[in-house]
Amino acid sequence: MTNTEPVESAPGSHRRFDALRGRWVLVSAGRDRRPWSGQAEAVQPGLTVAHDPACPLCPGNLRGAGAGGGNGGDGDGVRNPDYTGPYVFANDFPALRPGAGQDQGDPSGRPVPQAGLPDALLHSEPVAGVCRVMCFGPRHDRHLAAMSDGELAAVIDTWTAQTRELAPRWRWVQIFENRGAAMGASNPHPHGQIWASSVLPDEPAAEDARQRAYLRQHGRRLLVDYAATEQAAGERVVAANDGWLAVVPYWAVWPFETMLLPLRPVASLADLDGPLRASLVDILRTLLTAYDHLFGVPFPYSMGWHGAPGPADSGPAADRSTGGEHWQLHAHFYPPLLRSATIRKFLVGFEMLAGPQRDITPEQAAARLRAHVPSPARAAPT
Amino acid sequence: MTNTEPVESAPGSHRRFDALRGRWVLVSAGRDRRPWSGQAEAVQPGLTVAHDPACPLCPGNLRGAGAGGGNGGDGDGVRNPDYTGPYVFANDFPALRPGAGQDQGDPSGRPVPQAGLPDALLHSEPVAGVCRVMCFGPRHDRHLAAMSDGELAAVIDTWTAQTRELAPRWRWVQIFENRGAAMGASNPHPHGQIWASSVLPDEPAAEDARQRAYLRQHGRRLLVDYAATEQAAGERVVAANDGWLAVVPYWAVWPFETMLLPLRPVASLADLDGPLRASLVDILRTLLTAYDHLFGVPFPYSMGWHGAPGPADSGPAADRSTGGEHWQLHAHFYPPLLRSATIRKFLVGFEMLAGPQRDITPEQAAARLRAHVPSPARAAPT
Ligand SMILES: O=P(O)(O)O[C@H]1O[C@H](CO)[C@@H](O)[C@H](O)[C@H]1O
Ligand SMILES: O=P(O)(O)O[C@H]1O[C@H](CO)[C@@H](O)[C@H](O)[C@H]1O
Repeated sequence: MTNTEPVESAPGSHRRFDALRGRWVLVSAGRDRRPWSGQAEAVQPGLTVAHDPACPLCPGNLRGAGAGGGNGGDGDGVRNPDYTGPYVFANDFPALRPGAGQDQGDPSGRPVPQAGLPDALLHSEPVAGVCRVMCFGPRHDRHLAAMSDGELAAVIDTWTAQTRELAPRWRWVQIFENRGAAMGASNPHPHGQIWASSVLPDEPAAEDARQRAYLRQHGRRLLVDYAATEQAAGERVVAANDGWLAVVPYWAVWPFETMLLPLRPVASLADLDGPLRASLVDILRTLLTAYDHLFGVPFPYSMGWHGAPGPADSGPAADRSTGGEHWQLHAHFYPPLLRSATIRKFLVGFEMLAGPQRDITPEQAAARLRAHVPSPARAAPT
Repeated sequence: MTNTEPVESAPGSHRRFDALRGRWVLVSAGRDRRPWSGQAEAVQPGLTVAHDPACPLCPGNLRGAGAGGGNGGDGDGVRNPDYTGPYVFANDFPALRPGAGQDQGDPSGRPVPQAGLPDALLHSEPVAGVCRVMCFGPRHDRHLAAMSDGELAAVIDTWTAQTRELAPRWRWVQIFENRGAAMGASNPHPHGQIWASSVLPDEPAAEDARQRAYLRQHGRRLLVDYAATEQAAGERVVAANDGWLAVVPYWAVWPFETMLLPLRPVASLADLDGPLRASLVDILRTLLTAYDHLFGVPFPYSMGWHGAPGPADSGPAADRSTGGEHWQLHAHFYPPLLRSATIRKFLVGFEMLAGPQRDITPEQAAARLRAHVPSPARAAPT
């Protein structure tokens, strides 16, 4: 692959501050030109079978029927209904269960308090929650980008309905999709997951603290100001329409990472109105199509929604607020590919031990994605 | 693969607090039993050629001579010497350069300050540093675990010498190894890297803050107390000898993650004495051999050393201390495999968007690794 950016155009090594999470990313442009005799990703063929009799997620099929008649999961012997739209069911191997923590005693195994040593060194707490799987539709071969407007709207409506049901009862609701074997998807049938938990995990906790502090200091939402800044700058914008902005964040870690932001204040998927839902259908298809066209393969990624946290039933009073005054709804897309369909970015060594590092600038990434966006949806840099 | 732990023995879902970094990990044991039709890792064959004429890291070979006679890296046309022990040279595609930030103006590209919008949203700073590659030895086929005592001691001495040279001049020195294609190694010749930077990255910054606070509160080093706690508990210990402890941390994220800790206060690799070096040779070989035996393949991992940060030439007075009073030297090992030689743990979806989650308990992981440690080195649980 030839690199289309002249070497000279890249700025020197620097680090950028992630204003949303309060952390840094090291940007050292040009390292994507180094020789690579490392791992080559398997190119995932586009799926071509509308219904796979062996797929545990396809309509009408048996789940959990492994060799010997079962695998010990909750889905043993369960048959999927003949569903025709999005289909949500309880994860057969949930990481979280509703009852956890109420009657299990100390969950950490056999804690051994040491005389004179602070307990803080071995500290744990129970976590309750629910884990669900959401098939985006009955078709084994139809990913989000290939869906009709109506099919995509049905996916968004299901995300919204799940949020409305779960957000009032759990501290955090994580809607996400792992797409592609490279991103740990254990099954190729187009699907996502919904995990709700009794605690606020660290990643949204950091975003929550930063957004609260920004609102206190500036009287506006951090991500609403940020979207305006990016729209004016233009150079990191991938696509925009009436309601939404798709942007490679200034502080992106993954090579082609993007963020999807509504252009007006919205705290949660539960608050989407008709026009915002319609423009989300449009920008979602635009963004996912640009990804697929970039290297000409079904682009692997993990994506997920960050909406305002639900009520805390414990903790300091400052955390009890369920309000979304400070919080702006957004989606993150984390795709691993760097140079081609087969060469990904590895966040290893330095990244795991010190901090994230990227090999192309966010501006270079945005320009390359933008080239695959049809012009009406493309926001010209100013 | 059959799971040897009875389902009943696993505790319910809980989260554990990482006392070293101040973050949480979700532990949901038993999820490693779910069906897997996802990505299978390629099993890396053991290397069998002592010298590979095509390897840019082998002694006497040309570096950077790609198709067309070069690849634009600093190593174009450079020939490796006929080195016979560890060999350190400047990375041909450095992520950091010594001069960066002194004369480059604003490094962030074209920042566009928006009237009325805080600059904080697009904030960057220059980072200087050096990046080096360290071949562990001339043999293309000899990984650390297969080295003689003398060869391993030479590797440790080189780590020590590099630390002595770089730590006084840079804020952070990161010595690390990415082993195996699954961990992003771009070349199979046994080698590590050394990146030094003018700033303290987030990961060691978090460890620094936590260790400082602990010393203030308890008058002792956090990781010295932690090692004593783990030795007494026993159940997470993988191996121990006179000088060192290898343990699956209570808050481990990766399935078979371990930490290597000296048993007495030592701030930096630069402070290792003869006996500690000798016992490090021993425990390093023991740990790496246990890894390789666990699934019968060269075990992929990223590992690295965390020693006391160097002097800060900027920042608040509280950060200027170069002292290692609070800091305890340690190494982290982050291996990705979960169930077998071909099935790894993916930290994706929920992990990227919310927080880390693991599928087996640290106690289960330690027991399985311990089974591959010869008895003299094995610390029996009390
Ligand atoms: O420097 P290498 O071995 O070419 O590259 C490897 O290690 C680097 C430092 O951890 C990472 O940034 C790269 O993503 C990884 O592939
Ligand atoms: O639930 P799945 O699809 O089997 O598993 C996938 O997503 C989970 C949630 O992000 C991760 O914990 C797993 O490592 C990943 O393989």
